[in-house]
Amino acid sequence: MSQIVVEKKVLNENQKIALELREKFRAHKILVINIVSSPGSGKTTLLEQTLERMDKSKRVALLTGDLQTENDARRLAQWGFPVKQIITGGTCHLDAKMIERHLADWPLENIDVLIIENVGNLVCPTGYDLGEHFKIVMLSVTEGEDKPLKYPSIFVKSELMILSKVDLLPYVPFDAEVAKSNARMVHPGIEIIETSNKGDGMEQWMKWLEEKLAAVKSGELISI
Amino acid sequence: MSQIVVEKKVLNENQKIALELREKFRAHKILVINIVSSPGSGKTTLLEQTLERMDKSKRVALLTGDLQTENDARRLAQWGFPVKQIITGGTCHLDAKMIERHLADWPLENIDVLIIENVGNLVCPTGYDLGEHFKIVMLSVTEGEDKPLKYPSIFVKSELMILSKVDLLPYVPFDAEVAKSNARMVHPGIEIIETSNKGDGMEQWMKWLEEKLAAVKSGELISI
Repeated sequence: MSQIVVEKKVLNENQKIALELREKFRAHKILVINIVSSPGSGKTTLLEQTLERMDKSKRVALLTGDLQTENDARRLAQWGFPVKQIITGGTCHLDAKMIERHLADWPLENIDVLIIENVGNLVCPTGYDLGEHFKIVMLSVTEGEDKPLKYPSIFVKSELMILSKVDLLPYVPFDAEVAKSNARMVHPGIEIIETSNKGDGMEQWMKWLEEKLAAVKSGELISI
Repeated sequence: MSQIVVEKKVLNENQKIALELREKFRAHKILVINIVSSPGSGKTTLLEQTLERMDKSKRVALLTGDLQTENDARRLAQWGFPVKQIITGGTCHLDAKMIERHLADWPLENIDVLIIENVGNLVCPTGYDLGEHFKIVMLSVTEGEDKPLKYPSIFVKSELMILSKVDLLPYVPFDAEVAKSNARMVHPGIEIIETSNKGDGMEQWMKWLEEKLAAVKSGELISI
């Protein structure tokens, strides 16, 4: 099987730290994902459902960003996996330095998957590499089908779009096919999984994570 | 009746331009509002419903901001009021310079109400004065009750919170009372109107606009 190489360029201070993080993640074979969406699209809810279904032998760790409050870390802590809240103050995104600082006292050899929940924002997080393998963009069906056209950068940079809250489709004026078509217009290869807090799509999402983790462990998936 | 004075301080280049804009708006007795929310909370939908109900003798003009696309201006243009799209490229907010530039060829003496629909973002627009009388923050019931605590700045700076999509309350795990209580915790005096695209709250919202416009015209409401 051929190697998948995700190419990155070092550009600035953030990129330098991201590169160092990426090397550490690679050395420890940690799958790292960076989830981005508008406020309220359902990032924390997806992660709650993910942790609930996660094999407890899997060593998952989470960093969750917000301008204020430790609400999300509290919500996520109840499944027993390690969680840290990153409070950014006024900053509308996470940066590599914040990730580095919050990982400092976590032994990386004990982590298989690091899930980063970014600050709720479709713009600011786009330009900040956190050393992740994949950005994942989440769009909820309550938001409007044209978001991929209005905020193309994050859709271009994301490997996967999670279309969330599909249980609300009967009640909202949202055409999922148009939304998916818009996402594919700005990023032809983007993968799409439809989810809801009723459990829709969770099997497919857990399988996605499982496959990416296996590819990291086997050395097939390398982010450089 | 006593004068209501909204005090502002001149701090930087943006504030200087905002001050000039504010003086022009004051000279022409134009009510100016600046609507801020996450992407997909329903700003454009509210404005569509507003224009649909607006007395056609009212001279309303609209500026609508997005990173990309003229979709919103197209949606809003169908009611015959003047609309301009401001495309910000990668920028996550509108600034006073953009407003100044897009107003340059509009005769201000022909405008009673200027509605500015900011870029969908709960963080970046907070720090940019556009010369408006009021910032209005919109929060939809699909987003989670703790948004005022996570993004306090914009709730502190907004005169009014519009709680949108209340028709979806039966289908989402959202406690409106908790959300309102959170908003009042960070901004005790904040006004709140609950709306939906089914017409909920529109009478109250149109009355709010009408009263503010009357106060501007009478000289009772001055923004300095």
